[in-house]
Amino acid sequence: MHLTFTLLSGGIDSTTALAKAIDDHGQDVAHAFSFDYGQRHRKELDAAEEICEHYDIPHKTIKLGEQPVSTLTDNERLVPRVSYAELPAGMSPTYHHFRNGQFLSAAAAWAVSALHGEDHATLYFGAHAEDAENWAYADCTPEFVGAMANAIHVGTYQKVSLATPWIFMKKYQIIQEGEKLEVPYALTWSCYLGGAFHCRTCPTCRSREDAFEEAGVDDPTEYAKT
Amino acid sequence: MHLTFTLLSGGIDSTTALAKAIDDHGQDVAHAFSFDYGQRHRKELDAAEEICEHYDIPHKTIKLGEQPVSTLTDNERLVPRVSYAELPAGMSPTYHHFRNGQFLSAAAAWAVSALHGEDHATLYFGAHAEDAENWAYADCTPEFVGAMANAIHVGTYQKVSLATPWIFMKKYQIIQEGEKLEVPYALTWSCYLGGAFHCRTCPTCRSREDAFEEAGVDDPTEYAKT
Repeated sequence: MHLTFTLLSGGIDSTTALAKAIDDHGQDVAHAFSFDYGQRHRKELDAAEEICEHYDIPHKTIKLGEQPVSTLTDNERLVPRVSYAELPAGMSPTYHHFRNGQFLSAAAAWAVSALHGEDHATLYFGAHAEDAENWAYADCTPEFVGAMANAIHVGTYQKVSLATPWIFMKKYQIIQEGEKLEVPYALTWSCYLGGAFHCRTCPTCRSREDAFEEAGVDDPTEYAKT
Repeated sequence: MHLTFTLLSGGIDSTTALAKAIDDHGQDVAHAFSFDYGQRHRKELDAAEEICEHYDIPHKTIKLGEQPVSTLTDNERLVPRVSYAELPAGMSPTYHHFRNGQFLSAAAAWAVSALHGEDHATLYFGAHAEDAENWAYADCTPEFVGAMANAIHVGTYQKVSLATPWIFMKKYQIIQEGEKLEVPYALTWSCYLGGAFHCRTCPTCRSREDAFEEAGVDDPTEYAKT
């Protein structure tokens, strides 16, 4: 049997990756993993759960081990109120230490543990071109993804493969794909601040709002009044 | 500053890798990470601590997140009482799901979080040729190590490199290297059963005893009476 496991943060890219996994291989073999790494925006975990209820698929939130502190885990650190384009090139202030290496390794471990006999699996991972732009997130680049794809394939006895359908796409193109796949974007959560509404000012909110506009797709997001 | 971080299980290979890191770059920049993944042989964590006290270097035991069950974590599962050579080719019954991918990702995360400014770091990892033989441990092969080395280098903005000094050596050769480096082998722990003494019958005990003999080095291990 061929199973799919989507790394589901509850945001736009990963939710659309889940829709793609279901479109590619079917709803009956689809599973999703979310990760609790002490992120301040824990609302994304609730979003992920609701999205899996929408698709009626098994969802597991994997609690990661002890983490070094970063802007994404420490409420005392300021999330910048600018767009990604306004940040200097190189490491984003919202980079969490080798986060996607940790996510993908944990996902590979749980995926391979779920396989029996001749089963194999594909991990769907929603990294996209704008994550990698200017090396903001080194762990979203094609170079990183290629290396991890090899490590996972070899290290799981060639039972687990990695699929990154959006690696060369921009977020607005992902939304256009998702529109065709009827992705329930109203259920998704992007904001790094994790307040009652999307803040509209952090880099991730700005990229979300801009992408809907550029895609020409209605934005169902409830933004905080600014 | 150039720092070293050795993945230290408390066994022969990783302890000798630590001695090599210290020999290569100095005791003052050396650190060690151990991993608590719910292993039944928790004695190795005490061994690692004692080894770091011996070398007077900082030691951090990183608690990994929730793990799928394997022979190494479940006391109810039988550890085979044979040598590795007697096991069929392919996945060892003592493979823990993508363990080294998880270890290396967590080590990369903690290493990169410890760096400031122009600092960089090398992770020392003691995988060796017999781990990879017959694909017993896919996550010890040169193919896996090469891919993970790339993923770590790229995903940490080229700040963290991987060193695997034993990747083409057998365990007896590691012991011969360690003898020159005055490694305190009496402090190391190998046995997967984690009893009061080394059991002498599990694959890892057999490989330990054979390696000392083949190396022509006195074996300081206290084995259980058989």
